[in-house]
Amino acid sequence: MNTAANAQNHASNGSVAGARTQGMVRIVGTGLLGTSIGLALRQLGVDVTLANHSPTSLALAVDYGAGRPAADGDTPALIVVAVPPDITAETVARELAGFSDAVVTDVASVKGELRQDLLARGVDMNRYVGSHPMAGRERGGAISARADLFIGRPWVICVDDAQSGAETNTQAAALVEALALDLGAACVQMSTTEHDESVALVSHLPQVLSTLLAAQLTGHDSALRLAGQGLRDTSRIAASDPELWVQILGANQKPVLDLLTALRADLDSMIAALGHPDVAGSRSAIAATFAAGNRGVESIPGKHGSSARFVTLTVAIDDKPGELARLFTELGNLAINIEDMRLEHSPGAQIGFVELAVLPEVAERATADLTEFGWRLV
Amino acid sequence: MNTAANAQNHASNGSVAGARTQGMVRIVGTGLLGTSIGLALRQLGVDVTLANHSPTSLALAVDYGAGRPAADGDTPALIVVAVPPDITAETVARELAGFSDAVVTDVASVKGELRQDLLARGVDMNRYVGSHPMAGRERGGAISARADLFIGRPWVICVDDAQSGAETNTQAAALVEALALDLGAACVQMSTTEHDESVALVSHLPQVLSTLLAAQLTGHDSALRLAGQGLRDTSRIAASDPELWVQILGANQKPVLDLLTALRADLDSMIAALGHPDVAGSRSAIAATFAAGNRGVESIPGKHGSSARFVTLTVAIDDKPGELARLFTELGNLAINIEDMRLEHSPGAQIGFVELAVLPEVAERATADLTEFGWRLV
Repeated sequence: MNTAANAQNHASNGSVAGARTQGMVRIVGTGLLGTSIGLALRQLGVDVTLANHSPTSLALAVDYGAGRPAADGDTPALIVVAVPPDITAETVARELAGFSDAVVTDVASVKGELRQDLLARGVDMNRYVGSHPMAGRERGGAISARADLFIGRPWVICVDDAQSGAETNTQAAALVEALALDLGAACVQMSTTEHDESVALVSHLPQVLSTLLAAQLTGHDSALRLAGQGLRDTSRIAASDPELWVQILGANQKPVLDLLTALRADLDSMIAALGHPDVAGSRSAIAATFAAGNRGVESIPGKHGSSARFVTLTVAIDDKPGELARLFTELGNLAINIEDMRLEHSPGAQIGFVELAVLPEVAERATADLTEFGWRLV
Repeated sequence: MNTAANAQNHASNGSVAGARTQGMVRIVGTGLLGTSIGLALRQLGVDVTLANHSPTSLALAVDYGAGRPAADGDTPALIVVAVPPDITAETVARELAGFSDAVVTDVASVKGELRQDLLARGVDMNRYVGSHPMAGRERGGAISARADLFIGRPWVICVDDAQSGAETNTQAAALVEALALDLGAACVQMSTTEHDESVALVSHLPQVLSTLLAAQLTGHDSALRLAGQGLRDTSRIAASDPELWVQILGANQKPVLDLLTALRADLDSMIAALGHPDVAGSRSAIAATFAAGNRGVESIPGKHGSSARFVTLTVAIDDKPGELARLFTELGNLAINIEDMRLEHSPGAQIGFVELAVLPEVAERATADLTEFGWRLV
C-alpha cells in the first residue's frame, strides 16, 4: 500500500529511506512481541519510543536496542499496544486519548471481544486498527525478542465495515500494513469476525482436541509403551500453558463453541456407528468421516500440509551426529532441495530414520543418487 | 527367552547358529509384513517357505529373497499368518489344521475379535499365539518390504490365561518371542484384552480425533491461510486410508467406544464451561482439563514425547540445501548429538527454522558454539 515512491517522499521529509513506516512509532509493552517489533524497526532506522509500567522491563528493552524510552512531548504517528490480553482494551483507550494524532493498533490474538469493549468505551475508532501477527515463541519476554520474529508469518489486519459498529479507516489500516511489511510479515486482511472464526479453526480447535486427547493418557503407562509418532504429533501442543488458553478460549467463546459443537455432532455419529456394528450403513458413515478428514488435510496449504505435493524419502541412519552431517552434505552436493524433514528414532535401537520431503520431479533422481552413495532408503 | 546356549544347541542339530528361531518358518501372505519377516529371517540363514494365493505376489517375494515357495511335505516349526484382517481367522484355522506340529501366529492389529473367532471355530489354541508388530509403512506390498522394518519397534505377544477361553502355551509363545527378537523388535507381553485397549488409546483414539478435526477444515480455505504447525501436526494422520480404518475400528469397537465416550464427557464439560462465561468455576474447569493434557503429554515415554527431557534449540537458516549441510556438519564437528529435529518453513519466506532437541546438559554449550559459528538461534 505504501509504495517505494512513498518511502522516497518521506526520505525527503527527513524520514527514513527504505522503511515504509513513517514518523515515530510508540510501542506500549516490551514483552516478546513489542520488543521484537522495536528491534526490527530500529534496524530500519525508524524512531521508536518504548513504554512499560515496569521500569526494569523497559530498561532491558532499551538496552537490547528496541528503542528509546518514551518522553513527554513525543508525537508518534503509530502506536503499537503489545500488553497482555486482559489489559489491552484499557491500554488502547488510554493511548487513543493521550495521543490525538496517532493511529493505534494492538497485537492481541482474539479481536472481537476487544473491539466490542472499545466501542463500549466510545473511543475514536477512526484511529484504531486491530491486528494480529501470527508469531510467537514458547519463551516470552524481551529477552526472547527477535527482529526476524515476523518474517514470512501471516499478520492479520482487521478491516471492518460500518455495519459492525465502525468502519475501519483505510488510511489508518495502511499504516499498520506498512509496519507489518517492514517487519517482513505476509499481510492478510480480514474482518474482525472472520479473524476470530479463522483462528478458532486453525488454532483453538486443534488445541482443544489435542488437550482432550492427552488428558486421556495419564495413568496408562503400560499402554504408552506402544506409543508411536501418530500419538506424539497429535498430542504435542497439549503441552501448552493452561492459564494462557483459558484466556484465549474465554475471549473467543462463540466461534470455538460453534466448532466444538459441530465436531461433537460428528463424534456422536462416530460413536453411534461404532455402537451398531450390524447396521450396514454404519461402516459407510465411518468411511465418509474418514474421507472428509482426508479432504481436510489436503486443503491445508503450504509445504507441510499438502502431502500430495511432495514425495517423502526415508533414509535409515546411525544415531550419531556425523551421519546427519554426511547425509545433508551429500544432499547439498547433489543439489537436492529438502521441502520438509523429520528425524524419527526407533525406540531402543541405535538407528534413526530421516524423512525427507522432496518435489515429485526430484524424487527419482534423489532416490537413485542417495542409494548410489550408500544410503539405505527404506 | 531362547538364549545363546539354546542357539548353540540347535547349531549342533543342524539348525542356524546366531538365530534364535529354530527349524523351518512358513509365512502365509507376502505383503509388506510377511515379506519383511522373510527377508530378515533369510539374512539370519533361517529356512523360510512362502505361501500366497497370488502366484505373482509369491514370485515377487521369492525373487526378493524372502524365502522359497512352500512345497508339499514342508514341516514348519512356526507359521506366520500375515494376510489381510478379514481373512486372518480362517487362514489361522486352516494352517493349524494343515500343520499339526506347528505353532501358528499372526500379525493382525486387533486381537480380541480374532481370538473369539478362533475359539468359536474350535481350533487347537494350544498351538496359537496372537502377536502384533507395531511396524508399518505408508506404502504396502512386498516391494516395500525391509529386513529392518521391525528393528527397535514394539512387538506385542498376547499371553492369556485360561479364564479368557484358553491359556496361552508358554512354549509356543517362546517361539514367537524368539522370532520377534531375531527381527530386532522389542517384545512386549500383554493379554489380548490389554493389547486391544492399549492400541485403542495410543493409535485408534488419536486417529479418530485427527480425522474429526480435519473433517472440519474443508471449505475454509481463507482461514487455512493462517494455518501453522499445530494444525499440521494434529491433522497429519487424518490422511490415512478410510477403508483400512473402518476395518480396524470395527474390530476394536468396545475399547474405542469406551475412550470416545470418556473423551466426549470431557468435551461436553468443555462446551458447558465455554457456554457459561460468568460462572466462576468454568474457567478453573477449563484450566483443569488443560493441566490434565499437560500431564498426559508428559507421560508419553521416549525421545519425542517427553519435552521435559530435552531442550529445543531453534536455528534460523536460509531455505537451501547447502545451509542444512553446513549446520549438520558443524553440529557433527562440535560433537553435539541431536535427539530430535524438525524443519519448519516460514510460509512465503526464503527462511526456515531447524528445531534441534538436545540433552539439557548440552544446551548451553551448543547455544554458545552455534552462535560463535554465526548461526542465528531464535
